[in-house]
Order: sequence, then C-alpha cells, then structure tokens
Amino acid sequence: MAQAVVGNMLIAQSGGPSMVINQSLIGAVIEAKKQKAIKRIYGSLHGIKGILEGKLIDLRKETVATLEAVAATPSSGLGSVRKKPTPEDCVRIFAQLKRLDVRYFFYIGGNDSAETVHIIHEEAVKNGVDIRCFHIPKTIDNDLKENDHTPGFGSAARFVAMAVMGDNLDNRALPGVKIDVVMGRHAGFLTAASALARVHPDDGPHLIYLPERPFDVDRFAADVQAVYQRLGRCVAVVSEGIANAEGKAIAETFIKEVDSHGNVQLSGSGALGDFLAKVIKEKAQISRVRADTFGYLQRSFPAIASAVDSKEARRVGQEAVRQAVKTESGSIAVRRKPGKAYQVYFEAVPLRNVAKETRHMPDAFIAPANNDVTPAFLAYAKPLLGPLPKIGRFKGVRVEVPA
Amino acid sequence: MAQAVVGNMLIAQSGGPSMVINQSLIGAVIEAKKQKAIKRIYGSLHGIKGILEGKLIDLRKETVATLEAVAATPSSGLGSVRKKPTPEDCVRIFAQLKRLDVRYFFYIGGNDSAETVHIIHEEAVKNGVDIRCFHIPKTIDNDLKENDHTPGFGSAARFVAMAVMGDNLDNRALPGVKIDVVMGRHAGFLTAASALARVHPDDGPHLIYLPERPFDVDRFAADVQAVYQRLGRCVAVVSEGIANAEGKAIAETFIKEVDSHGNVQLSGSGALGDFLAKVIKEKAQISRVRADTFGYLQRSFPAIASAVDSKEARRVGQEAVRQAVKTESGSIAVRRKPGKAYQVYFEAVPLRNVAKETRHMPDAFIAPANNDVTPAFLAYAKPLLGPLPKIGRFKGVRVEVPA
Repeated sequence: MAQAVVGNMLIAQSGGPSMVINQSLIGAVIEAKKQKAIKRIYGSLHGIKGILEGKLIDLRKETVATLEAVAATPSSGLGSVRKKPTPEDCVRIFAQLKRLDVRYFFYIGGNDSAETVHIIHEEAVKNGVDIRCFHIPKTIDNDLKENDHTPGFGSAARFVAMAVMGDNLDNRALPGVKIDVVMGRHAGFLTAASALARVHPDDGPHLIYLPERPFDVDRFAADVQAVYQRLGRCVAVVSEGIANAEGKAIAETFIKEVDSHGNVQLSGSGALGDFLAKVIKEKAQISRVRADTFGYLQRSFPAIASAVDSKEARRVGQEAVRQAVKTESGSIAVRRKPGKAYQVYFEAVPLRNVAKETRHMPDAFIAPANNDVTPAFLAYAKPLLGPLPKIGRFKGVRVEVPA
Repeated sequence: MAQAVVGNMLIAQSGGPSMVINQSLIGAVIEAKKQKAIKRIYGSLHGIKGILEGKLIDLRKETVATLEAVAATPSSGLGSVRKKPTPEDCVRIFAQLKRLDVRYFFYIGGNDSAETVHIIHEEAVKNGVDIRCFHIPKTIDNDLKENDHTPGFGSAARFVAMAVMGDNLDNRALPGVKIDVVMGRHAGFLTAASALARVHPDDGPHLIYLPERPFDVDRFAADVQAVYQRLGRCVAVVSEGIANAEGKAIAETFIKEVDSHGNVQLSGSGALGDFLAKVIKEKAQISRVRADTFGYLQRSFPAIASAVDSKEARRVGQEAVRQAVKTESGSIAVRRKPGKAYQVYFEAVPLRNVAKETRHMPDAFIAPANNDVTPAFLAYAKPLLGPLPKIGRFKGVRVEVPA
C-alpha cells in the first residue's frame, strides 16, 4: 500500500452532465472531509479550464445542507468542459496545482474525461510531479470499459423508459408512426433501455435500432411497415449514433460540428428524426409520421433520477477518495456480483483501462434481427432504473351495437 | 331545471392527449355510476370514430382498481381522434346512439372537440334527436374560452418548467445558446410556463417568445446576443406557433401537413428549432448552439402530473355528469375565485362559447419587450403547476491562487 500523501485536493467535472454527477461530487467531498490526509478541498469551475484560469471555489465553505441540495440537483454543479489537455496545458496545470499544494486530483466524467486524467497522470509522472489522479466514472451512455454499468446511465435510462412509456400511450391514442431519437454516440445502452417501457404485449417500442448494428434505411422502412400493418401503429426508437454498413453515422450527412476530442455533434438537433420521418412517409407511404429527439432532457431532467443510480454515483465519489488516499492513481469501476439479487462492488482500476475507449452493447444483448434487445439485456438493465410508473389499461369488454 | 332523462351514456376522448385526460374520463364514469338517470356507460374508442364504426366498450365492466389505474395514466385511455363530423356523420352517429339508447353524450377535449360537440348538438336539435351533449374541457395549450385555465395545462406546464430547470443547469455547465421549442399553436401559455423554472436571478429561460407577438428573426438574434454577452450563455424558449408580423407561422415555411380542422402540423418535427439554431449561428456568430423540441413528452410523460391539475381534471368530469343530468347540453368551465388563496369553482356554459375559438395570453401576462412574461403571469400560473423540484447551488467562495 502506498503512503498517504498529505495535502489539498482538487475536484472537477467534465464532459456531458448527468442527473447524478453531483452525487459523485458530493460523495467525494463528504468523504474527503473525513480523511486526515486531505486538507483543503478545491472545486475547479468548468473542469481543467478552471485550473488554467484560476477559477476555483472552496468546497469546505459549503454547508452540509447546500452539499446535499447540490447532490440532488441534476447537471454539473461545478460546471463542465470538453477539453483535451495538451502537454503545455499539463505543465500550466501542474504549476497551478503546486501553488495550491494540491496532491489529489479528482475528475468526474466519461471516457474522454478519463483520457484527460490519464494524460495528466502520464505527464505528471514524466515531469516528476507528485499528484494522485483519480477518475470518477460518469456517463449516461454506459460505455466505459471495466464497468458493469456507469453512474448516470440508470437515471438517463429511466427518463428514456418513462418517455417511451408515455409516448407509446400517445401513439396508441392517436395511431401513426412515431420515431424517438435517443442519445448514444457509439453505444446503444440508452436506446436499448427504452425496451423497459413495455408493459403489454402490443406496447412500444416496437423497433429499436442501435449504433452497434449497421442501419439500413430500406430495412428500417420495411420493419416499420410490417409493424404498422400488424398493429396499425409503430413506435421506433433509434440511437442518434446509428451508422451505415461503412460505419458512417447517418446524422453526419447533415451535421458538421466537431469537438476537441474529435466527436461529431449529434445532439441538440432534430435533423436525424426528421430525416427518418421523411424516409417513412416516402418509402412506407404512411402519412401520420412524427419524430421527437429527446435531447438534453435525457441527462438533465430533475426529480426522476433512479434511486439505485443516485446511491451508486455517491459511492463512486466516496470510493475514489478512499482509494486515492491509500493507493496510487486510477479509476473506480462498478462491478456486479454474480447471483440473482442485484448487488454491486467497487474496484480501483488503472486509468489506461478506461481512457478514451468505448464499451459497446454485447452481442448477447442485441436480438438477431438487429431491431430489438434480448431478455438478457432487460434482466441486466432493470435493476438500474428502479421501479417505473404503473400504467393502467381498460379490460375493454366490447359492446355489441343492436341492428 | 330540465327533467332528468333516463337512459345510457356514451363518453369519448378527442384531440391531443394530456397527462390527466383520463382523470376526467374516470371522474365522469364514477359520477355516472352514482346517478340513477344513467344506466349503461359506454366508452367509444377513438372519439366519434368509435361510434361510427361500432367500436365501443362497456365501462361498467371495469373494476374500481382499473378505473383508478387508468385515471393515473397519461394519454387517452379510450384512444383519440381528430375528426370534425359532417352533417352526414351526425345522422349516422344519431342512428347508432338510438340503437344503444344513449341519451347522454360526453366528449373530452379542447376547442376542436368542443366544436365537434357543438356540431353534434346543433344537428341533434335540427333532427329532433333527444340527446344531452356535454363537452369536458381538456387542453395543454390552455386556450379554451370561458376558462381561467384548462385541465391538462398544469401538468404540461409542470413538465415544461421542470425540463427548462434541468436544461438551464445543463446550459450553465456547458455554456452556449440553447433553444427549446414548446407546444402551443396559437396560445403561449405553455411556453410562458417555462418562466417558472427560474430560481436564481441568472437562471434561464432568459428569453421567451410567444405566438401572441410577432416574431422577428433579427430581433431574436439581437436578443440572444445581448444575453450571451451579459451571461456567457442563453436559454431561449420559443413557442412552436411563433409567427411573423403577417401572422404566418415561422414553422409553416418548412411544414406542409394539415388536419381536418385546418391546423398545420407543428409538433413531431425538429425543423423549427434547427432553423432558429442556424439563425443564431449565422446572425449572432455564436458557435455552440443547440435546439431541443420538447415534443409529445409535454403531454404524455408519466408520473409528474400536477396534483392540482389531476384533481381539477377529475372534477370537470364529475361536474359534466352532474350538470348533464340536471340541465341541458353545455360545457364545464373552470373559474378562479378572486382573492389571495387559490380556489376554483366549476360552471356550465353554452357550447357555442367554447367551440373552435382560441383564448390567447392576455396582454397583462406579456412583458412589453415581447420576449418575456410578467409577474402577473407567474402569479397566475404558479398554483397550477404545484411545487417544483428544489435546485441546489454552491455558495461558491472563490479561492485565490497564490503567485
């Protein structure tokens, strides 16, 4: 076991916010207050940008009531950033951290943020800077390597399942084709979670398209038409990241913006949904076709977070602080215990294992027809979302109209 | 007081669903079970279409548990329709109702549905058909004449306020310009309700655009730029129905579909949001611009309905049955008692008073700059949404970085 370093800590949030990313932040802060090795607790505003610009706040000056209120609030309470540090940025970051006597650096985020921590850690080693760097996992996409699932996913998945529950009822009331576009650049977990919206056998989503399988426009139109002929309606849920057989995202045809990690901007536009609606109107010749893009609500909607997800998000923050004090740099991974009852545990893993790379939906979770999920996925995802709203439906005893 | 007619009743739902339209349905059914004058209780599937096609269910065969489960479920449990009856349709409807000995006809919906009831009532009088026709108010747009507000609005408004609360936090974490498009063809109430999302003085929505005021693209770009320069970010909420000085909806430029009541389809497309985002990117030269169109979730999202709205929706269903038994045909209006504490009462009003026409936001609710609401609107709307989620924010004591 490594020697506990005594000094200050700095924590920040990065990448896309989630409904429970503040739980991890507050989990880390509350744990840090218990650790003798940790003195001052700095929060950097907007990720590493706050360090570079000297925009930091003192998290020891926040009351417990405020900490708890922030924990229960969606989005990143410290602000976020999408920024990959250059070696020059790292040198400036180390200079700032040295001035502040920071020995512990915590960064909450997804795989791009893990890459940032990995870069900072490697540069620290290279430059002989003594700082423990810990990545705290967060991503609604559920695409971090090493993790059974990631904090943020359960709540976003709960939003998606609830939204599709409601949308299926809406589509049942006013039948037609409804296309819902869900976040998820390369991993289909969030889109797949819409399957948990099903209560009755004829409930939507009737079709689910994931980025893990090639998306073919003609096949899509044929699938929709088949469901429409059978049920007189169809709810299809599509990942924003669906790509053709060559791996090119369908949305890339009409969206051009790219961030510093090289990702094309897919969210914040209704273009993909509108394109797919047009496809159905033309190819399947169905007139009432609507598309909704769930957008940023999936990661920021208040008051509906999954209780399990909230608890686990809090735990990864706590665990990161505990591990940082007693070991080296790393990331916290969420593991599931084998067995019937849902139980998790947490483990420290090397940064390089989670940095940058994307975890995809395993084949066992995707139905052979490539337009649905399997029961194995439902069993995997169900405990993460928590109980969903009850849906009432009439028995509907038909009345014979007398002649 | 008119004589109580003894016979069967038929109830149906029409137009866009809401989160609480089933409360009105169940309120009416439960009240009808108490009325001696009412014998069988038929539910018509998909509005008047169910009568014409003989698709009816027996609502006396549903258990209380099912009735209550349906009441708490969003969207129209009997299915809905958008159909304006022709005089020929009415003759066929009367023939069906005669075969079923229906003397009470209840139709839950907005102003187009009220128009349908009005037409059926007028045709019944003309054809000497003895049937009491009652309209039960429902519209998320809050645009029914005679009503202080309409069942369905409070819950949709609550969704919009919650969504913008979360979205404001998301935009605060990753600053840029965010445009949210909200339902509301001619009335801006739902868009206006986003103002209730504000907790802190710098919270969004920073700008609100309503269909009641002419929308000018240049003025919009200048407004957004001004907010962006002041706060480094901007959340603008825009009604789907915003129109130019000539009264032409901005969305009509790119959407062509029209329903049988002559309404252009505005929802179910992200085109308006994407158009406005492009305007800002080009005219205000801001790069991070995102648009979300809240879409059908506004009227169908489960488990977040306003408690006040749910209760009132139940009451208008009850009241319609009571009034139908003791008076003539009509509609139920929701009135607010003057005074500080929020209290409502219900009154029967003539069908012609609510049919077809739209109630707009009064001038007193719209800020003179045409890009916000007034405190009078906030006071009006607040009790309808019920308590909103608590939002935590750090005090944020800044840390001086030593030189």
